[in-house]
Amino acid sequence: MSAQVSIIMGSDSDYNVMRNAASILDEFGIGYELDVVSAHRTPQKMFDFAQNAHKRGIQVIVAGAGGAAHLPGMVASISPLPVIGVPIKSSNSIDGWDSILSILQMPNGIPVATVALNGAKNAGILAASILGSSNLEIQEKVLAYKENLKQQVAQKAENLRNNA
Amino acid sequence: MSAQVSIIMGSDSDYNVMRNAASILDEFGIGYELDVVSAHRTPQKMFDFAQNAHKRGIQVIVAGAGGAAHLPGMVASISPLPVIGVPIKSSNSIDGWDSILSILQMPNGIPVATVALNGAKNAGILAASILGSSNLEIQEKVLAYKENLKQQVAQKAENLRNNA
Amino acid sequence: MSAQVSIIMGSDSDYNVMRNAASILDEFGIGYELDVVSAHRTPQKMFDFAQNAHKRGIQVIVAGAGGAAHLPGMVASISPLPVIGVPIKSSNSIDGWDSILSILQMPNGIPVATVALNGAKNAGILAASILGSSNLEIQEKVLAYKENLKQQVAQKAENLRNNA
Amino acid sequence: MSAQVSIIMGSDSDYNVMRNAASILDEFGIGYELDVVSAHRTPQKMFDFAQNAHKRGIQVIVAGAGGAAHLPGMVASISPLPVIGVPIKSSNSIDGWDSILSILQMPNGIPVATVALNGAKNAGILAASILGSSNLEIQEKVLAYKENLKQQVAQKAENLRNNA
Amino acid sequence: MSAQVSIIMGSDSDYNVMRNAASILDEFGIGYELDVVSAHRTPQKMFDFAQNAHKRGIQVIVAGAGGAAHLPGMVASISPLPVIGVPIKSSNSIDGWDSILSILQMPNGIPVATVALNGAKNAGILAASILGSSNLEIQEKVLAYKENLKQQVAQKAENLRNNA
Amino acid sequence: MSAQVSIIMGSDSDYNVMRNAASILDEFGIGYELDVVSAHRTPQKMFDFAQNAHKRGIQVIVAGAGGAAHLPGMVASISPLPVIGVPIKSSNSIDGWDSILSILQMPNGIPVATVALNGAKNAGILAASILGSSNLEIQEKVLAYKENLKQQVAQKAENLRNNA
Amino acid sequence: MSAQVSIIMGSDSDYNVMRNAASILDEFGIGYELDVVSAHRTPQKMFDFAQNAHKRGIQVIVAGAGGAAHLPGMVASISPLPVIGVPIKSSNSIDGWDSILSILQMPNGIPVATVALNGAKNAGILAASILGSSNLEIQEKVLAYKENLKQQVAQKAENLRNNA
Amino acid sequence: MSAQVSIIMGSDSDYNVMRNAASILDEFGIGYELDVVSAHRTPQKMFDFAQNAHKRGIQVIVAGAGGAAHLPGMVASISPLPVIGVPIKSSNSIDGWDSILSILQMPNGIPVATVALNGAKNAGILAASILGSSNLEIQEKVLAYKENLKQQVAQKAENLRNNA
Repeated sequence: MSAQVSIIMGSDSDYNVMRNAASILDEFGIGYELDVVSAHRTPQKMFDFAQNAHKRGIQVIVAGAGGAAHLPGMVASISPLPVIGVPIKSSNSIDGWDSILSILQMPNGIPVATVALNGAKNAGILAASILGSSNLEIQEKVLAYKENLKQQVAQKAENLRNNA
Repeated sequence: MSAQVSIIMGSDSDYNVMRNAASILDEFGIGYELDVVSAHRTPQKMFDFAQNAHKRGIQVIVAGAGGAAHLPGMVASISPLPVIGVPIKSSNSIDGWDSILSILQMPNGIPVATVALNGAKNAGILAASILGSSNLEIQEKVLAYKENLKQQVAQKAENLRNNA
Repeated sequence: MSAQVSIIMGSDSDYNVMRNAASILDEFGIGYELDVVSAHRTPQKMFDFAQNAHKRGIQVIVAGAGGAAHLPGMVASISPLPVIGVPIKSSNSIDGWDSILSILQMPNGIPVATVALNGAKNAGILAASILGSSNLEIQEKVLAYKENLKQQVAQKAENLRNNA
Repeated sequence: MSAQVSIIMGSDSDYNVMRNAASILDEFGIGYELDVVSAHRTPQKMFDFAQNAHKRGIQVIVAGAGGAAHLPGMVASISPLPVIGVPIKSSNSIDGWDSILSILQMPNGIPVATVALNGAKNAGILAASILGSSNLEIQEKVLAYKENLKQQVAQKAENLRNNA
Repeated sequence: MSAQVSIIMGSDSDYNVMRNAASILDEFGIGYELDVVSAHRTPQKMFDFAQNAHKRGIQVIVAGAGGAAHLPGMVASISPLPVIGVPIKSSNSIDGWDSILSILQMPNGIPVATVALNGAKNAGILAASILGSSNLEIQEKVLAYKENLKQQVAQKAENLRNNA
Repeated sequence: MSAQVSIIMGSDSDYNVMRNAASILDEFGIGYELDVVSAHRTPQKMFDFAQNAHKRGIQVIVAGAGGAAHLPGMVASISPLPVIGVPIKSSNSIDGWDSILSILQMPNGIPVATVALNGAKNAGILAASILGSSNLEIQEKVLAYKENLKQQVAQKAENLRNNA
Repeated sequence: MSAQVSIIMGSDSDYNVMRNAASILDEFGIGYELDVVSAHRTPQKMFDFAQNAHKRGIQVIVAGAGGAAHLPGMVASISPLPVIGVPIKSSNSIDGWDSILSILQMPNGIPVATVALNGAKNAGILAASILGSSNLEIQEKVLAYKENLKQQVAQKAENLRNNA
Repeated sequence: MSAQVSIIMGSDSDYNVMRNAASILDEFGIGYELDVVSAHRTPQKMFDFAQNAHKRGIQVIVAGAGGAAHLPGMVASISPLPVIGVPIKSSNSIDGWDSILSILQMPNGIPVATVALNGAKNAGILAASILGSSNLEIQEKVLAYKENLKQQVAQKAENLRNNA
């Protein structure tokens, strides 16, 4: 299965969060690749990655980073693909505010699709819904996923009513 | 030209910001529709909109709202389409923090692709890059747009060096 | 004893906080019901709940949710009943600011009676004082509760003066 | 028409905001009284007010204050009535954070039903829904008010679609 | 030794912080009293305390409280004495911002001398310097205390240079 | 009338705020001096000021500064006198948070009595209550001032009730 | 005079702030160059600039940017030179917090010397003190500059004492 | 090896963070000294240190402090050397915001080169790049350090791709 989504992160310490993007894509049966690409420590690699991802068949990029998180925005400045940014609450972060604002507040012309703090799972779901917007098979899976959420809540609600 | 993008907003007073999403889609030659849909004042309309948008050929939803901004997240909870949320700094907003956090911090399972405060223009560009991820003609336009940004900066830089 | 108060929450993981609303209503001898209703995962159930609660004899709704907490506001947009919102500090919350602002900063027309972060006990007391505003028996219990708080402080103050 | 709601404020400079609570109660046909009661400048008057309001037939208190806003919480500590707090963004306020947190974050035992910054209109609507929870005539008016909001949005949406 | 300073707190759970005010006053040989006085749970006791403290020979009041911390400001609104406010970071506090702003941002006319979050020790030193401003013996002790701080740093600096 | 209070500020641009401390001391009939002393631009002058103020008969220091406001804390580190700090919201300040935190969050051993943002008037009143703690004549004036606040509110309340 | 300092900014709209860095370098007689280099709009130009600045004789880089400000950090990731970052409070910025945190909170390995919001003048002075650390002539000018600040304060203080 | 860099801190409890500045300077082979200098507890020592450091051959000062952190700014007000400020997240700090703002937001005329919260390692690297701006041997080491970061990321990326 060839990769449609590229999941990159600024540091291998981000993998513990970013793996949740991979897991949910596995669930949706969507191919992906995983790499460490640091805007600050490997700027040339980041540059090459962003210039070429769409030429390799990648359709969506998911990029996670913490602190002064420049990776999602820098990739978005170069690549024509939609870039989903995952702010990561790293150690010495200021409660995550730094990564949120560094990813969210991009200037006019260069959007990043930002999700919640540590929201890698949601980044994966968003990637699926983006692919699904032109692929009905994937869109059906997204709808089924939402239906399943509903069933889970129904079960939990019943447990609560019975046991509370 | 049929609408591929639906631009909705919680109040007609948001139009002054949200029109920038429409303008940039005009520039890209992408069809869109515009509507006022309030999660709080017209919950049933919002519900119907979200359940049916993908059936009408809409591929991306752009939703702007201010204050305790529930529209993007509520639409995302129902629709299988990617939803781009635009936090709007309305009057009596607390510097925009309320709309940012109400849109960004969605729970696991229900992502919203959040852009910067008042970032409707970026929402339009992000919609284009999402459509472009499976449509090479649009992707080319996104690349051309980025190339154009570069030219503009080059011109401004020359002006600055000559006149400063 | 039929339920006068409905205590709902966005996730069963909120029960650990929301049980404090139930406990204090038990103390006041006020009937209540408990359920999991998610604005995002079960939007139709939320919709039905909000449209019908007042028809079933419910007089006050207490709704707790974390993160981008839309449940209290969405219920308030549909139901004519007073809705008390309890912001919950969930994991990956940004210190609770997200749930506070998502519940508190409702637009004109749709109020939510917001209490402190994790303040489910206070939500229960507020429900009692709302019922008590047209029911002297309950109002007497609220006054007695406040008198009791005073006694407890007096005892603790004496302990402190004796032992410090 | 005797007063069911008491609207108090910490300073006459708050009247510009708090008048919106009065206006909406006029619309609902609910009687109210208006007064300046300062927790800090007239503590004895505040004390007397809070001890006696429920004895005079008042059923709901709406209290607005800015900065380190102690009025709503102090009144709630004494009166058995539900107290709705309106944080006011006064001059030299720190963007309203001070009044929000001073009103919202009450300790266990003493709830204040907090509404949005400068949200006096919503305070009036909340007062109506509280009265309506035991008075079907008022509850009908609250439902009609919500229906009316829907109509207004429908009209504005049509204008936007026609003119945008 | 009769009490010149009155140390009060909103809850006995604040004692763990507030005891540091008592300890440093012991070090300075200044008499004090300790009590639990809650603005919210014992408003009448607070009222009586504030009206009478200066008549009993108290010269400085130190008041600690957490959350929506009204005790220091309410006492300052009634008593002519200088009131030192200690914001306490209680559980469910929002990182202490609520208690800081509730104590610091008092309106014109009613100052509270606010110290750092959990800064009870500094409150005791400030009380000493206030008493010392008209009592040379105490002022000498304050100067000696500062001299002692200098010595301690000199010792620690030497240890660091020798062992680092 | 010799100066009992020294009012200093980091820049002459702070005078517009700090004059309110002077005005209220005039009202209380308390002597004061005014000076510009910058911790950053005139560190030696600041040093000399702080070492000698108490020797010249000064009993209370009021120090205002904006941004990274070091003046109150630096003076408090040297002088045995109580130092009242006034955070000033200067241009390029971050909403005043910088000056508040730079003055309030002093380390153990070196308290600053912090008042509200731009709260120079309250700094003057606090200085009066500090002097009044050992001078009954001044304490009487403080009590009269509070009584006067009450009268003013009574008048404004009557106006509001008559005209609203 | 050849350029020792390179002043770059993300947008020509930043020039109004960044010109203050140029002015103070003029005052110190230090050569500089000015350019617009956008991390997001001209990533390749930024890359080339950062790789070559030190080869052209530049010794210090001053980089200003607003919002999600990636320019200073990206340049610092490539260049061996000290990079001084100036956070700029642009329109739609969130009070400047976004640019401050995006510049300040760089990960280990890639420092940016951050100055205050809009602090371009201080960036120029810092550049001078960096050059002065190995050039006594410039260091003398920095000392003279500080001496001059002292004189200015002395003059302003005298004016205040005479005219207040 | 004589000291080119002086690493000072406000308290010996800051050493756990500040040692990282020393370690990285060891790695670069740059001489340094370490001392405890408190702006608040040893103001005269701080004064003497700042007046003399450049006369002793020191070229860069690294100063760490927490809370209302005045040490870096006070030293910068006196010394002509570049001062790198390290905000330290101490106990009772408000998430580090107090130390960040107290160091960063210096007034015009007195810059401090601020690095990230607890960013002592980056302070050391910045000191090296400052020395390197006029010393090609050190500049080469800084370039080699950046090259090494790149290698480390390459290794970690390979591990991730192989094992994820």
